[in-house]
Amino acid sequence: MTEPAPQGRPAGKPRRAPTIHDVAAVAGVSRGTVSRVLQGGHNVSPASLEAVNAAIGKLGYVVNRHARNLVTQRSNSVAFLLTEPQERFFEDPNFTTLLRGCTAALGEHDIPLLLMTAGDEAERRRVVRYLAAGHVDGVLLVSSHRGNPMIEHLREAEIPMVSCGKPLGQRGRVAYVAADDREGAKDMVRHLIESGRSRVATVAGPQDTPGGVERLLGYREVLDEYGITFDESLVAYGDYSRAGGEQAADRLLAAAPGLDALFVASDLMADGALAALDRAGRSVPGDVAVGGFDDSPAALTTRPALTTVRQPWDRISQEMVRLLLAQIAGETQPTVILPTELVIRESA
Amino acid sequence: MTEPAPQGRPAGKPRRAPTIHDVAAVAGVSRGTVSRVLQGGHNVSPASLEAVNAAIGKLGYVVNRHARNLVTQRSNSVAFLLTEPQERFFEDPNFTTLLRGCTAALGEHDIPLLLMTAGDEAERRRVVRYLAAGHVDGVLLVSSHRGNPMIEHLREAEIPMVSCGKPLGQRGRVAYVAADDREGAKDMVRHLIESGRSRVATVAGPQDTPGGVERLLGYREVLDEYGITFDESLVAYGDYSRAGGEQAADRLLAAAPGLDALFVASDLMADGALAALDRAGRSVPGDVAVGGFDDSPAALTTRPALTTVRQPWDRISQEMVRLLLAQIAGETQPTVILPTELVIRESA
Repeated sequence: MTEPAPQGRPAGKPRRAPTIHDVAAVAGVSRGTVSRVLQGGHNVSPASLEAVNAAIGKLGYVVNRHARNLVTQRSNSVAFLLTEPQERFFEDPNFTTLLRGCTAALGEHDIPLLLMTAGDEAERRRVVRYLAAGHVDGVLLVSSHRGNPMIEHLREAEIPMVSCGKPLGQRGRVAYVAADDREGAKDMVRHLIESGRSRVATVAGPQDTPGGVERLLGYREVLDEYGITFDESLVAYGDYSRAGGEQAADRLLAAAPGLDALFVASDLMADGALAALDRAGRSVPGDVAVGGFDDSPAALTTRPALTTVRQPWDRISQEMVRLLLAQIAGETQPTVILPTELVIRESA
Repeated sequence: MTEPAPQGRPAGKPRRAPTIHDVAAVAGVSRGTVSRVLQGGHNVSPASLEAVNAAIGKLGYVVNRHARNLVTQRSNSVAFLLTEPQERFFEDPNFTTLLRGCTAALGEHDIPLLLMTAGDEAERRRVVRYLAAGHVDGVLLVSSHRGNPMIEHLREAEIPMVSCGKPLGQRGRVAYVAADDREGAKDMVRHLIESGRSRVATVAGPQDTPGGVERLLGYREVLDEYGITFDESLVAYGDYSRAGGEQAADRLLAAAPGLDALFVASDLMADGALAALDRAGRSVPGDVAVGGFDDSPAALTTRPALTTVRQPWDRISQEMVRLLLAQIAGETQPTVILPTELVIRESA
């Protein structure tokens, strides 16, 4: 009687190379199981592991393929890591705009995006443990506050990362993509002064965030340009939330009732400031001209429509993805600063 | 001269077992790199892989530890997979409520949640490829539409999953957690009729979703209870979006101007329906009583405040996580149906 085909082939005649299907068939498991064994044995039972390794040996499939996997295997995925509580994420339309842009930019490379949030230390530990195990190739870091511990964790784990916005206090060791916050703020404050306003106040962002620092510096530089003395009573600080902007505007109206213009460091805070001005009976732009920053969807729903500074979210997303994929491929890329744009609507 | 300690120890005296730190030190790489090699070599350069394997061999560290990893390694993570376009996700507050609940429930087990979206075929391919590689232990599936191809993909890849809501046309092969849609709808329609309304119309959800089907069935069953003949002209369909609810209400007002009550199958659609009634000059609840479904945050911001059916989102999240972790541990768990609650506010 004849032997089965493989063993029975004429000497020297090459046999078809065994495929993952053959391994699965011989081991009596699914392709998914074989694939998981080849990629490190995640979620494989001891019995299946043994059956797959036996089949791999029998078919002469293991050595090269498995070795190649060990050496070259990437997860082919990228994490969009938000180091804020989820609430912040869903309140601020900038985040969702950035998420959509990054998802699309990665999609062009057929790479899936994983959204992860790490708003407290317990979440940070969990996320780092996952990332350090090699389940993602790199991280798009959306983090604003100085001394964010996540950055150190990621560096220790040697995970490629690109930050959205300049990470403060990192001495240039982290690649980032940012809009030109200072020039954007200067364009807005010049616009307010050129439109004839003389008492220009500002609601600045938190001073442990680059936008908070740079946009306030831009405001001060333009005052200098026009020989206007800086007045502490015309500066209040908010936390980038709508409520924070409203409270900051209340404080400004109490400390400097004569203000006739207001530069607010984010559209969401500007929306809150408009509510405060309305309660105080100030018309916009009649009594007070108001300028925001971001050109987020929030700017379109304010009454009156908000004059603001457009951040180039699409280009920011594309550049973040480009820099990260280059880093994953082992190249080092320079940080990218993108220009902003003054968008004139009704509020100033 | 004396030899270095390890080799110099008296025969028989046990040497301290080598740790991952020793391997990293000998290989001259980071612990992160060693850990990645032990977990399958994701993102490890050929040079580092060689150095680590050499160090592992030299220290006698490899065999047991590596073998144990291959057999027992889990990613200790769970995906929250949304099979809708991202836009849908961010418009509908139910999704974010569910996401928060699942993140918290997993947090109690120190398991990180990965949010992934698969709104089109390209995204589905990407996501399945990632999941099938064993990078997550299981999937919390948030999918509503019948015949969602994702479910077949996940089953083929043998990935544990629990669906939020009953997956239609799956003949009970998928574990799920759902609110009792039909009973919830019946409570609301009874409430509308008992409050003296005689022409009760409904905006139903899509008929390829369980909520769309079950809530409409509940509506019809209560009409039968009260001996009211079912009237096609009192039924319109929406897509669960605010705009869809507004358009459906417009159609109902044109087809049945005499309606005096409206049961809308989601709060977001109810918000749109209230806008349509307002445009048509109908007072709520004076001319038309309106009842929603979900008790989502949207219900609190409508004018008037919306009478609705509360879905127990916290319990749904907790049960989804409980079922999924049991499935990952190899147990099979029964599907869970949770009761809803009628919440009376101002609109009915």
